[in-house]
Parts: sequence; structure tokens; C-alpha cells
Amino acid sequence: MEIIKPSIPKGTRDFLPEQMLRRQYVINIIKTVFEKYGYQPLETPSIEKLDVLSGKYGEEGDQLMFKILKRGTGLEKVGREIKEFSITKFRDIADLGLRYDLTVPLSRVIAMYRNEITLPFKRYQIQPVWRADRPQKGRYREFFQCDADNVGSASMMADAETIAIINEILTVLGFKQFKIKINNRKILSGIVEYSGVETNRGMDVCIAIDKVDKIGIDGVKKELLQREISDNAIAKILPILEISGKIENILSDVSSLLKSSEVGSEGINEIRELISYMKSMDIPTNNYVVDLYLARGLTYYTGPIFESVVEEPKIGSLTGGGRYDELIGMFSGENIPATGTTLGIERIIDVMTELKMMPEAKTSTKVLVTIFNDETKDASLKLIQKIRKAGINSEIYFDSNGLKKQFKYADKMGIPYVVIMGPDEAEKNEVSLKDLRKGEQAQMTVEKMLEVLK
Amino acid sequence: MEIIKPSIPKGTRDFLPEQMLRRQYVINIIKTVFEKYGYQPLETPSIEKLDVLSGKYGEEGDQLMFKILKRGTGLEKVGREIKEFSITKFRDIADLGLRYDLTVPLSRVIAMYRNEITLPFKRYQIQPVWRADRPQKGRYREFFQCDADNVGSASMMADAETIAIINEILTVLGFKQFKIKINNRKILSGIVEYSGVETNRGMDVCIAIDKVDKIGIDGVKKELLQREISDNAIAKILPILEISGKIENILSDVSSLLKSSEVGSEGINEIRELISYMKSMDIPTNNYVVDLYLARGLTYYTGPIFESVVEEPKIGSLTGGGRYDELIGMFSGENIPATGTTLGIERIIDVMTELKMMPEAKTSTKVLVTIFNDETKDASLKLIQKIRKAGINSEIYFDSNGLKKQFKYADKMGIPYVVIMGPDEAEKNEVSLKDLRKGEQAQMTVEKMLEVLK
Repeated sequence: MEIIKPSIPKGTRDFLPEQMLRRQYVINIIKTVFEKYGYQPLETPSIEKLDVLSGKYGEEGDQLMFKILKRGTGLEKVGREIKEFSITKFRDIADLGLRYDLTVPLSRVIAMYRNEITLPFKRYQIQPVWRADRPQKGRYREFFQCDADNVGSASMMADAETIAIINEILTVLGFKQFKIKINNRKILSGIVEYSGVETNRGMDVCIAIDKVDKIGIDGVKKELLQREISDNAIAKILPILEISGKIENILSDVSSLLKSSEVGSEGINEIRELISYMKSMDIPTNNYVVDLYLARGLTYYTGPIFESVVEEPKIGSLTGGGRYDELIGMFSGENIPATGTTLGIERIIDVMTELKMMPEAKTSTKVLVTIFNDETKDASLKLIQKIRKAGINSEIYFDSNGLKKQFKYADKMGIPYVVIMGPDEAEKNEVSLKDLRKGEQAQMTVEKMLEVLK
Repeated sequence: MEIIKPSIPKGTRDFLPEQMLRRQYVINIIKTVFEKYGYQPLETPSIEKLDVLSGKYGEEGDQLMFKILKRGTGLEKVGREIKEFSITKFRDIADLGLRYDLTVPLSRVIAMYRNEITLPFKRYQIQPVWRADRPQKGRYREFFQCDADNVGSASMMADAETIAIINEILTVLGFKQFKIKINNRKILSGIVEYSGVETNRGMDVCIAIDKVDKIGIDGVKKELLQREISDNAIAKILPILEISGKIENILSDVSSLLKSSEVGSEGINEIRELISYMKSMDIPTNNYVVDLYLARGLTYYTGPIFESVVEEPKIGSLTGGGRYDELIGMFSGENIPATGTTLGIERIIDVMTELKMMPEAKTSTKVLVTIFNDETKDASLKLIQKIRKAGINSEIYFDSNGLKKQFKYADKMGIPYVVIMGPDEAEKNEVSLKDLRKGEQAQMTVEKMLEVLK
């Protein structure tokens, strides 16, 4: 038989047990916090119809989407009808795509089950998404997103709660120095209005200033000029973005500049309300800032936006989110307010691994039961079933090829305890238990052993 | 803006929170048992190279596989080179496929990380697989498999442990009447040898007799004839398969018939050894049978095979598995023994829902904190953060539009408790707690409330 060289697609990963334990550790913390805040789980199919996915993520999104070939008669029909194959006709040969994010599927779900779902609907979703991006450090083609969204409430309390969730997750995970940056698309609109640029050009301004971390202020200036924003307007926009200091001072400074802009003033009031709720919810003031440069790249945000970053290592944002009151309407025709956040779990895991913030367990197994020789097999099998009945994770080494090899295996696997049940022990109806970390071994009754292992 | 009618691909499902809670309940039990038996988690990419997937699942598998269109320049190149489009040329336009099962990815992983993985390698994997099958009741195009496999041990103890895991999971899930059917491919080979059919026709015989539950014994006879098995051979095969009764009697009857077949005798010895280990492991004898008709459709089994069924409702098997000592060799060139099982979690969930074996919780949220009016918002926010600090899952209703609506929401969501923090309560520094199931309400301190909720 021909041997197939084993490999996986570019940008994808296998997670061996040790990596899985780390992923499970992080995901369990995130899930626990989501549920503590009253969010319920949702899962959607990995494959969606291309109609649902297309046109939601911009031109780049349509290119980076993994598309699935039609099957059976559908593909046969295409085969008969298409005489000349053209790549621009992928819609003729592909009908489905792999999920690109979790926000569009949520919006589809809300529209599709509008009569079954009670609003407000607070859901979390932890599933993989796929993007055929150029793979690079920390960027994968298949990666998990962890989203929590609150659908159906226009209250700033929903945004404050989202920030409280981010704050609690990052804290419980062990991050000491992080900042949640807060801004509001309405303030940015106010600034655009104040600068004299047409309001429908707002997204151009957002995309440019969103790049400040990568290209610096001079870069933003160049980018704004390229996007045909006038020198005059730029001279009005940039100084406002520079305003920093105490949150109250920023807000009052911006407020007086934008007092003639209705949308700008509304944005400032929203942030004021948001911050007052965050204070009631006891979010440490040290953990957040108002950063007028924060713009977020996605088009669908309509109100408060937030992103969190760590100082070290420099790796970009760990979370990103905001309010999107008009996206669900694209599916339902009815505008339903919504706000939420995505946790970039792959980046969080990478940073935590780099900063050694992960527990070091290599296995969830507590004890290895050895087999002394062929005659004691049954006794070992009976013993391990007792250990499992007590709810203790345990493994038995099936091949009775010497204790030395079995001890070596336990050590290699990181299993902390080893049990020996030889003829000596059997005679006294006892077992020997060795603690591999301490290097200590003692003979004891089965009951005593269960106590130690618990 | 044009509204897109929200829908999902044929054979896929959205899992709303109530369904998710049921899925999580079943998956948690399965995971806990897997880990109790020392199995560690593994995850592999949803997308695999077509080379890895093709030819492993038979002709049908290649047809039912979801294939992914090439991207970017790869597809452009095809567009330039292909003048006429033909569906048989899908390999020109598709390079990846969605995962079709979890056993082939496991085999690929073992071969790919041969130097990093310590054998025996006991892994569990709970992930979706995709098959473009005709959707029907209980059969989906995207569905989860739960696999536990033991790689690297040829001992019958590994097979006994797999059966112990199946037995424990079905028992803990609450199944009262189930049977684990056991057979051995080597016994079937012995029977083929005894019947005078060429040994390389063994798989034909297996595929035919595997259908007995669907088509009956006469159907099997017809199918064997169609597959050009002679009348004479059929007359020798079928009476053996009919042998039933006590396991010891079955084995000794078959043993004397197959005494001249080396492979048949080996199979019988393996089953004897397997059953002796199962007895040491305390698996109730009532829960398993030797069923010589059990054959399993997949080609890769080489030793013991097992399947479990419930009497009611008639729904086919809940689990299926067996030993496959030669599959990994297809990737590594080196034969590594392996055995394991798949749990058909979709079918298990369907049966448990039908038999009302599921917990009825609609939410994991314990309590709803209401907002009495605009003035008490901050007090409610402070209160809910205290509840969350105590680790209690809780939700706050953001829009202070009357208590009645908030109570109705809690009731609809299945949240068992509601807290009211009105001016009366605030004055005494107390809260009112209502138990919606009992319909009882009482005023108490925050500390007392936390006690009740815990």
C-alpha cells in the first residue's frame, strides 16, 4: 500500500493533549464568567449559505472566505451547463462557505427564530471560524472566537456589562496590566461633522485613524490625505484625537468643541452614562481609558466601541467589540439594538504561554496503576475500577513488561502517582503508592490510598 | 438595503440555549468518564488535505465528502489552465475537505508526531464531522462524534477498557436496558475459511451479514448470493451465525467447528481473554452479549468489534467500535495496534430527549435582579456584582419598564429566583427574594439572600 505523507493544511493546527489542557483551562474560565453574567450558550453550523455570508465583511472578506464545492447533481448540472470555467463564477460551483465570524451567524439566528427567542437575548458562542488569510505569527486560518453579545437592549448598562465581563475575564486569567480602551462611533461622527467633512465619509476617517498603533500619527495624516480628506479638516480632526488625561477632563474638553454637533453630544452623553454604570459595577478605574483614537475597522458599529490591550508583550488587542444597532436589521428588516465583544482566544493563549501564566499540568490523570506480572492483572483491574468509582482519573498500563518501564511512562506523561499491587501487597490486602514528585513510596490499605489521592 | 432571507444549509442545525444545555449535559458526562479512564483530549483541524481523506472511507465516502474550493492564485491558475470544466476534475479546483470522521485524523496525528507522542496514547476527541448524506430523521450533514481510542497496545485489556467506558457512559446517562454486542473479525474470517470461500472475499461476507437488522436472515442470504457466495458456503456460514445462548456455550460450540482455522481459533481466544478482563472490571454480565452476526461495515477492523443498542426506541446503534491494528500504518508505514469506540452523540441525545431522560433546565441562570426605577439602577448594579462575586449565575434586566414585565421575562426564561431592590428594601438595607417555582416572596438581608441562592 502507498504511504501518504501526513500533513495538515497551511494555517491550521493539531492540539495535542498538553496544548488542549491549556485551551480548556482558558475556555473554562471564559465560560464560567459568561454564565455568571447570565449569558447562555449558542452554537451555529460551521457551514453557512454564501448568500448569508457574502457582503458582510467587505471585499477582503469575500476573498478570504473558504467556499465549498457543490455536491452530486448540483455540481453535475453545472458541469453540463458551464462550457468555459472562470474563477469569477465561483457562485456557479460553490454554494456554501465556512463561518467567517460569530456576529453574522448570531444576527441570522435572531432574525430566523424571532418568534421563539425572548429579548433581551444574552448569548455566548465559542466556536472556530475560518479565514484564508496569509498565515503569520499569531494569525491562523482556523481559529476560535469567544463572543458574548446582548441583543435587544439599547441601554448603556448592556455596554457596561460587556466591559465588566472583559475586565473580569482578563483579571481571573491573571493579567495584571491591561487597559480597556473606550470610545464611541458617535463622538467620531461628531468630530467628522466638526471638521467639515461630509458625514458619509466618516468610515474613511475611522479606517485611517484606527491604524495609529501601526503607522503612527504621521501615517494617519498621510492616510487621511490619500483618502482625500482636506488639510483643513485634518488640522481640525487630529488635535481633538490628541486630547488625553482624566476621563472627566477629556469628555468636557471634547464636549465643548462638539457642542454644535447633535450626534457628537449624544456620544459624549452615552460615554458619561456608560462610565457611571461601570463605576457602580466596581470596575477598577485603573483598568480603562477613554481613547479617542480607537475607531475599530468594522463598518457595523453604531455606538460605544471597546478594545483591550496589554503593555507587554506588544501583540495587538486581546478583545474587541462594541454596539451594532443596525446589523440584525440586514436579516430581519427590523432594527434590534445589540452590543457585545469578541475575545481573541488564540492571542490570549499565546500571550499567557509567553508570560508563563498557564498551569503546568501535562495530564488530567492522577494515578497510574501498574501491572506487576501476568498473575496480578486481574487484581490490578479490580483495583483501578475502585479508584475510578471514587471519581479519581486513573490509567492502567496494559502491558506487564516490567515496573521500570511503567514508572518511566508515568514520569514522561506527568502522572503524579503510581500504584503497585504485587504479590507482597496482595497478601496483606494492601497497595504501595509512590508520589513521583516527592519520590516517596509507602504501603497502605486501599481506603488510605483513596484518601491520599483525593 | 436588501433583506437576506435567513436560512441554514440542508442537514445542519442551530442549537439555541435550551438545546445547548442538553448537549453540554451529555458531553460533560462523556468527557468526565473519558478522563476518569485516563484519556486525554485531542483536537484536529476541521479541514484536512484531500490526499489525507481520500480513499479511506470507500467510494461512498469520496462522494459524500464536502470539498473546499482552492483560493486566490491557486484557483486563478486553474482558471487559466482548464478550458473545459468537468465535475470529475474536482481535484483541480478543490484541495481540501471537511473532516469525515475522527479515526483517520487520529491516525494522521500518530504518524505525524511519532517522536513527540508517548505510546500507549489514550486520547478522546469530541468534534463535528461532515457528510453530504441525504438528510433524514436522526441523520445530519454536520454532526458531532465522541471518540475514545487507545493507540499502541495489542492487549485485550485495552478492548475491555473501551467496553467498560461504553458501559459506564450509558449507565451514568441513565440507560437501563442496553446491550453491548461483541464479536471478532478473526472469528468471521474463521467462518469464511470454514465455509470454503476465498479469504480475500471476507469483507463481502461481512458487509452482507452486517445488514441482518435491516433486511433479516433471508435478506442476508439473498445479498450473499448476489455477492457470488455459493449456496454450499452459505449453508455452512448461516447456521454458525445463529448459535446463541450463554457466552461460554457459544464460544465452545464455535470453537469446535473452527478448530482447524488458525485465525478463527485466535479470535475465540481473544474473546475469551476479553470477557475475563470485563469480568474483573465488574461490567454487569447482563449488559453484553456475543453476537456472531455483528460484522461492522468499515473495512479497517482487524480484531474485536463492538456495538451497543437499546431495545426501545428502535433507532440503530448508539456506539460502534473495534480494533484496527493496520490503519495507522497507512500513514506511518509502521503498524501500530489500536482500538477504540465512537459514541453517536446525536442519536444518544435524540433517544434521551424522546425517553425524557434529560434535565429540564432552560437556563443556567439562577436569579434575575430587577430594576425598580431609574433611581435604583445603581443599587441594583452594585447588588448583582455582589451576587456574581459569590459565584452565582445572575442576570440584570436593563430596562426599568415595570416589575411585571421583568417577572414575566424571568418566568419565560425559566430563571428560578427574582430579586427586588426597591426604595423600601433600600431603606432597611435589605432585598426581597421571590422563588418563582414556589411562588413565595420574603424580605431579607443580602447575606441571607446569598445563602438561599447557594
